[in-house]
Amino acid sequence: MGSLKLDHELDNNSHMMVNPLDPEEFRRQGHMLIDFTADYYQNIENYKVLSQVEPGYLKKLLPESAPYYPESIETILQDVQKFIIPGITHWQSPNYFAYFPSSGSTAGFLGEILSTGFNVVGFNWMSSPAATELECIVMDWLGDMLMLPKSFLFKGNGGGVLQGTTCEAILCTLAAARDQMLNRRGSEKMEKLVVYGSDQTHSVLQKAAQIAGIHTKNFRAIKTTKSNSFGLCPNSLRDAVHADVEAGLVPFFLCATVGTTSTNAIDPIGPLCEVAKDFNIWVHVDAAYAGSACICPEFRHFIDGIEGANSFTLNAHKWFLTTLDCCCLWVKDPSALIKSLSTNPEFLRNKATDSKLVVDYKDWQITLSRRFRAMKLWLVLRSYGVANLRNFLRSHVKMAKLFEELCGLSCERVNELNKKLLESINESGNMYMSSTVVDGAYIIRCAIGATLTEERHVIRAWKVIQEHADALLGKN
Amino acid sequence: MGSLKLDHELDNNSHMMVNPLDPEEFRRQGHMLIDFTADYYQNIENYKVLSQVEPGYLKKLLPESAPYYPESIETILQDVQKFIIPGITHWQSPNYFAYFPSSGSTAGFLGEILSTGFNVVGFNWMSSPAATELECIVMDWLGDMLMLPKSFLFKGNGGGVLQGTTCEAILCTLAAARDQMLNRRGSEKMEKLVVYGSDQTHSVLQKAAQIAGIHTKNFRAIKTTKSNSFGLCPNSLRDAVHADVEAGLVPFFLCATVGTTSTNAIDPIGPLCEVAKDFNIWVHVDAAYAGSACICPEFRHFIDGIEGANSFTLNAHKWFLTTLDCCCLWVKDPSALIKSLSTNPEFLRNKATDSKLVVDYKDWQITLSRRFRAMKLWLVLRSYGVANLRNFLRSHVKMAKLFEELCGLSCERVNELNKKLLESINESGNMYMSSTVVDGAYIIRCAIGATLTEERHVIRAWKVIQEHADALLGKN
Repeated sequence: MGSLKLDHELDNNSHMMVNPLDPEEFRRQGHMLIDFTADYYQNIENYKVLSQVEPGYLKKLLPESAPYYPESIETILQDVQKFIIPGITHWQSPNYFAYFPSSGSTAGFLGEILSTGFNVVGFNWMSSPAATELECIVMDWLGDMLMLPKSFLFKGNGGGVLQGTTCEAILCTLAAARDQMLNRRGSEKMEKLVVYGSDQTHSVLQKAAQIAGIHTKNFRAIKTTKSNSFGLCPNSLRDAVHADVEAGLVPFFLCATVGTTSTNAIDPIGPLCEVAKDFNIWVHVDAAYAGSACICPEFRHFIDGIEGANSFTLNAHKWFLTTLDCCCLWVKDPSALIKSLSTNPEFLRNKATDSKLVVDYKDWQITLSRRFRAMKLWLVLRSYGVANLRNFLRSHVKMAKLFEELCGLSCERVNELNKKLLESINESGNMYMSSTVVDGAYIIRCAIGATLTEERHVIRAWKVIQEHADALLGKN
Repeated sequence: MGSLKLDHELDNNSHMMVNPLDPEEFRRQGHMLIDFTADYYQNIENYKVLSQVEPGYLKKLLPESAPYYPESIETILQDVQKFIIPGITHWQSPNYFAYFPSSGSTAGFLGEILSTGFNVVGFNWMSSPAATELECIVMDWLGDMLMLPKSFLFKGNGGGVLQGTTCEAILCTLAAARDQMLNRRGSEKMEKLVVYGSDQTHSVLQKAAQIAGIHTKNFRAIKTTKSNSFGLCPNSLRDAVHADVEAGLVPFFLCATVGTTSTNAIDPIGPLCEVAKDFNIWVHVDAAYAGSACICPEFRHFIDGIEGANSFTLNAHKWFLTTLDCCCLWVKDPSALIKSLSTNPEFLRNKATDSKLVVDYKDWQITLSRRFRAMKLWLVLRSYGVANLRNFLRSHVKMAKLFEELCGLSCERVNELNKKLLESINESGNMYMSSTVVDGAYIIRCAIGATLTEERHVIRAWKVIQEHADALLGKN
């Protein structure tokens, strides 16, 4: 560590840099940070859930440029407390009910610590065999817990990979499906390829299609209706595909969703796969949020028919106690991914890769460098066990049912009022919910899934909603 | 936390799940992990740098499925020590000289802890204002340290974003450039677009082009020569572009490299930008590894001419003490990125976004969800300060020069022998170097940049090389 030497610009020993990975200094500062974070969880209910700062608040508080001389960790932590925490929207708060959960846990956190501590860049097997092999193992474990068909697992010649987010995973499968179709059709042009989803499908599908060069006029968001609970109707898909084929276009990709973002709608996977099969369309199933529940036998039916799909994703960082980011992608045919995503530069050649006995995950994803994400999923699976993970998910479902009962029929479709109500609740900082518009109705969403949420928070949430509604309606 | 209740399947109180974010249990286990990691750094020289396990080693050691009941952190850590560490290639070892550095540090690690602890999903400003604002601030700080033109900074209407890796960043800029060119040309077809790099450009360019749907026959890897130190010659670029234009094709993207992976070659940015300008070609400058050195005034000249480029990347996770992943991307025209990458689903609508006073980083990158990466870069900049960061980089440059002097002229171009020599060294586990092939020559690469590397490790590395060479040549 040559930096032990004093820089000529440093005029004072107190500014001398010692080894930036000195084990004893690492230990001292590490313990401080653990206490800081534990205290944060201890006090989290004291903070306003939704940050109430104004745009540009932080620029006024921080200096114009990076410091020339080192600053102590004590000073920095004071600034985190004073300047950063007020600008945080507390996703870990038990009163966080917005968007989707980001359910952290001690085990997920510890896995992240180990991954960061080793700081390996696991692009191929050889760059750290444990990182690749542990990932293959936990993906088969979790696949089994979800009762995925063997064809999605390594033991059945499919396999799983941990990516950052669903957007990356959809982009990878979309590129694989695109290239497969272009190869199959020989002279076919990119401009003819068509992607399908519903009007409830997450916008990441549209984004992935844009990035992959699919023409925007060839993106189909098929209309859903309330009568089908906003699920994608197989007949509507067939009609849309037929019309495109008639017009000389080439359907190639469908994204079906298990648990849409707006209303948690479920697309009927089996019947949709039947339609797709007739046209050689790649089916990706996005179960980003709701998929976790399928480790409980009583909820597994939501992914019935998955054997007909080509790929499946679930975000362990949403509702599975694994910190951001950790998107689980399983594919039946890894070679389709590899054909689209592999590059083999000379500087990465090695015996293990040449032997073809190993998985090189760089060819299963967009990026070359990759973090040791399997560590956190492994810690979550082992620290809680299948039994308690089911227990955890069931407890949230139960709380959601309680909330539903509390609401009863009192939720009315008065768009302007709902909007004002949500603003008033969120500005109070007592809880945080989000909104959507479905079928013309402005809807307040209450997503129950934060790790720290207990029944009492749900009951209080309902009281807060009532109080704000009464105030708005002038009942008080 | 409804999971406090006993699941009917759990037959024993000892298996009962308590709050997975219980602050006191978090504290206890967190401290254990800090000690575990500090001990790892303390003992890192005792491990073989390159893991010596065989493919499939871990499957034999771990159970077939996830445990049904929880396991203790003590048990899990024993397994990490016994099963995982032997499968780790120790990128943090002072004897790690392969590929490129992955220079961890205490400050980077602590930043990651804070980011993981808050576990916010910072897709837009509102989802955690501090995450977005701190990122804008540190990107301007680091841009200033690199003396980037103001046009790349927020204060000059450009701006920076922290992505995962260079591959993501190149894909984003390539998609932006592609769409800009297609819009400008009206009816132009995707099939006509051409991408340029040199035969030394990192394979991520080719991969990004594949994903973005650029036809493989339109990817130009322009030949470089030893006489130009393997830098891309502006005249060669002009010739290639001319030929493509003559053939009715549409040049649109050039990736120039400051510090290639094989030999650390430098493409002449200024003159290349001049050529690109004549054809409206987007120039991206990839300074993934070597770019860090440009915070030292004496090395800044390597990016002279950067004012003519459109975008610039540097990986803080390579040689800038920030743990994986942290790719810094600056662009002059954020609106070009946003046009290609934005989607605005109803459920993400909010006042702040509508006001246009804020940055929503989801529109600057592939993924929607994003980690609070700015935290670690902020901690690195503050904990070490500009002075010591320069000191750190200079110390590695000095060690590399020392190594060069030690080698003298003794390195011969005997391909087969070099290959055997490298295998023999790496199998010893005493140090780890990697290889490349340039201009037909098999070259052993020694990349000096690990945080813990001191002069004594470099001197020893040279001795190890000599010993293995002597053994191979039968001198002993």
